[in-house]
Amino acid sequence: MIRISEAKQHDGEVIEIGGFVKQVRDLKKMQFVIVEDVSGQIQLSLQKNEENAKLNELCASVTPESAVRVTGKVHVDDFVKLGGVEIWPSEIVIESLSDSPLPIDMGDYITTNRDLRLDWRYLDLRRRDHRLIFKVQTAAEMAMREYWIANNFIEIHSPKIVGAATEGGAEVFRIQYYDKDAYLAQSPQFYKQMAIAAGFERVFEVGPAFRAENSNTNRHAAEFISLDMEMAWINSHEDIMAFEERWLNYTIAKVKERYGDEIKEVFGKELVVPEVPFPRVTVEQAKKIIADYGYTVPPETKGDLDPEAERLMGRYARENFGHEFIFVTEYPAAVRAFYQMRREDDPTKTKSFDLIWDGIEVTTGSQREHRYDKLREQAIEKGISPESLQSYLDYFRYGCPPHGGFGFGAARFMMNLLGIDNIREVAFVHRGVDRLFP
Amino acid sequence: MIRISEAKQHDGEVIEIGGFVKQVRDLKKMQFVIVEDVSGQIQLSLQKNEENAKLNELCASVTPESAVRVTGKVHVDDFVKLGGVEIWPSEIVIESLSDSPLPIDMGDYITTNRDLRLDWRYLDLRRRDHRLIFKVQTAAEMAMREYWIANNFIEIHSPKIVGAATEGGAEVFRIQYYDKDAYLAQSPQFYKQMAIAAGFERVFEVGPAFRAENSNTNRHAAEFISLDMEMAWINSHEDIMAFEERWLNYTIAKVKERYGDEIKEVFGKELVVPEVPFPRVTVEQAKKIIADYGYTVPPETKGDLDPEAERLMGRYARENFGHEFIFVTEYPAAVRAFYQMRREDDPTKTKSFDLIWDGIEVTTGSQREHRYDKLREQAIEKGISPESLQSYLDYFRYGCPPHGGFGFGAARFMMNLLGIDNIREVAFVHRGVDRLFP
Repeated sequence: MIRISEAKQHDGEVIEIGGFVKQVRDLKKMQFVIVEDVSGQIQLSLQKNEENAKLNELCASVTPESAVRVTGKVHVDDFVKLGGVEIWPSEIVIESLSDSPLPIDMGDYITTNRDLRLDWRYLDLRRRDHRLIFKVQTAAEMAMREYWIANNFIEIHSPKIVGAATEGGAEVFRIQYYDKDAYLAQSPQFYKQMAIAAGFERVFEVGPAFRAENSNTNRHAAEFISLDMEMAWINSHEDIMAFEERWLNYTIAKVKERYGDEIKEVFGKELVVPEVPFPRVTVEQAKKIIADYGYTVPPETKGDLDPEAERLMGRYARENFGHEFIFVTEYPAAVRAFYQMRREDDPTKTKSFDLIWDGIEVTTGSQREHRYDKLREQAIEKGISPESLQSYLDYFRYGCPPHGGFGFGAARFMMNLLGIDNIREVAFVHRGVDRLFP
Repeated sequence: MIRISEAKQHDGEVIEIGGFVKQVRDLKKMQFVIVEDVSGQIQLSLQKNEENAKLNELCASVTPESAVRVTGKVHVDDFVKLGGVEIWPSEIVIESLSDSPLPIDMGDYITTNRDLRLDWRYLDLRRRDHRLIFKVQTAAEMAMREYWIANNFIEIHSPKIVGAATEGGAEVFRIQYYDKDAYLAQSPQFYKQMAIAAGFERVFEVGPAFRAENSNTNRHAAEFISLDMEMAWINSHEDIMAFEERWLNYTIAKVKERYGDEIKEVFGKELVVPEVPFPRVTVEQAKKIIADYGYTVPPETKGDLDPEAERLMGRYARENFGHEFIFVTEYPAAVRAFYQMRREDDPTKTKSFDLIWDGIEVTTGSQREHRYDKLREQAIEKGISPESLQSYLDYFRYGCPPHGGFGFGAARFMMNLLGIDNIREVAFVHRGVDRLFP
């Protein structure tokens, strides 16, 4: 079987293709059928006559979206609007006839509401633009892995069923695990650190994470893919940022090379390979910058940046550095997780960063506290009982190198990369408060 | 920081390394400290004298497994047993002092029982041989992805929280999902097929799967990584087998190229790149072969092969083809899942296969039934109510190409590849009836 995008290379030859019927034009003397596979569309042209009677009948009756296998001769012809090539079919087999009418609109412009589209997600995905998201994601993840592996990272698969709900018990899903209670992992954080304590030195993981958040926003999902890394023997969070920016530079360059033109055509977005180093400012500097834009972060954020502040930092990065990205560093200890390392000279500040991309926070990273006593102290200070953390704290008892890392939601990466504003469009199948199917 | 394996290239230079203290020999005039990082071990040599007083004191007191950062001059010397190179340290920083004694034996030969080792999994993993498993797994998975992507596969991440326990309700973990009941996915089977119905044509997934099996064997885990693929427009299960054998040939060749020597040294196993095509026999032929070895499959297997039969088929493949692998095809419909396609000319047989590697079944694959009415009929025949399957059956209503695929447990792959007989040793963190920690 030949991919449709490659048909043109077989002018004059008889080939076989397979795909979905997208359109049938049944004219007086001719029939035209548009067939689409994963690589593109092609036109079948068929004269109506005695000889073609059976095929003519089939084309007249085949329903849109039916899966067909077509044998025919390739005819390259500049007059054919669709790619300058068509097929003169000698055989068409309907492998699977589609019911009619379709439950959602499958035309070029989407008119069906999102919820109904998600109910029929497989049909919703049967479109070039939606499929492209997953081709791009495949290329992006592969590039990320290439970069990690070229830099001596080991891939881990940490358990998603965990015995304790350590990182914020409220938003955790509970499982009946044989005769015990267990939970779905909210992040691989503790296991990445376990790998560091195990001497793996540099690890990454691409896997699901689960948050029982009760929010139904454009940016939340109950289940999502987390891109995570952790590396040892760093001197500070600066080493993690330096790694992340090179990793993003490599990944976006690879995606652009492979899909840049198609992304521009389909999503109207010109990918920009971000130059390294990315701009960096501390939270304190960021607040001054934001003040110059006439905005003050409300006191209830306790020194953190809120979404509006992040949006302005995105604007600042664009206006002053012509850059889509900016690192904001040294968040106050009050708003960061207990395991983030503090500055030696000012323990109210963490050795941490967020990465802001086009005004949206996409990564949280830091150096971790690897010293048992300090880590335990910081947990207590945050009101977490060290007993509940003991199996985690134990990772730091028998030698653990300094280390740090970051996490990056795959969906957020894809949304920013392609300029898509709803997480439901970039997840293969979305999970949220109101969505458990398909 | 320099990786220890690369220190030798820096003869005469002052470098920095980081690692765990493996051994201290405190002699009359000299101190020798063995430090290990992810890449290897190196010896620190230190004269005992006035000038070194502080370092001498540190080396005398540092506990095994402490994490240290070392600055020193590289000295290449054939007389040094450990790799012909040592470091003359000028500075040693104890980044994290290990408690003593260690809770498990960390010596060259494992004396601690497995259960205690798994309690302290991070220390158990802090060994060259155990670490190598995950380096090899990283290389193997990367090779698999390379092969998939070179063959136009799209990577998917299907949801692990699912609304219905469709594939065998008994062995499923239940979740409290907001105000609903949900389940952990036992396999991505239905979602792979959804991607086919969506027109993705070729998809793969590497992700967790969950089975609430009550067995505590060497080969079962409650959570495991499943390597899955599905491809459209096939003519039969033969196309899937032809793909799988080339995929394994590529993967094992890549692993051998990168880690073959180290695997031989550490595990005593010489990797064999399997020649394609692999031998193939039908179940009926297999039974005759087994009979020749004097074994008959007991009637309660209903025509399936049991583990002893699989072991004998492994022996047959070795003795007759000099091959580690053999495909057994056309299993009886009675013992296969309802969604497997049947032979047109003999509907008691499925268009299916198992792959047997060294006498152990490692893959199950088949062409799938993509025709709505037949699929529904086959479900009913197996006693599954079509209502419970409706959202799955719906994938076949609006055009779905012929397709098939297979699943392969990553742990089983690693066990067979390296000759390791317990799944607990190849999982980063094991999950089973009696194990929910760490």
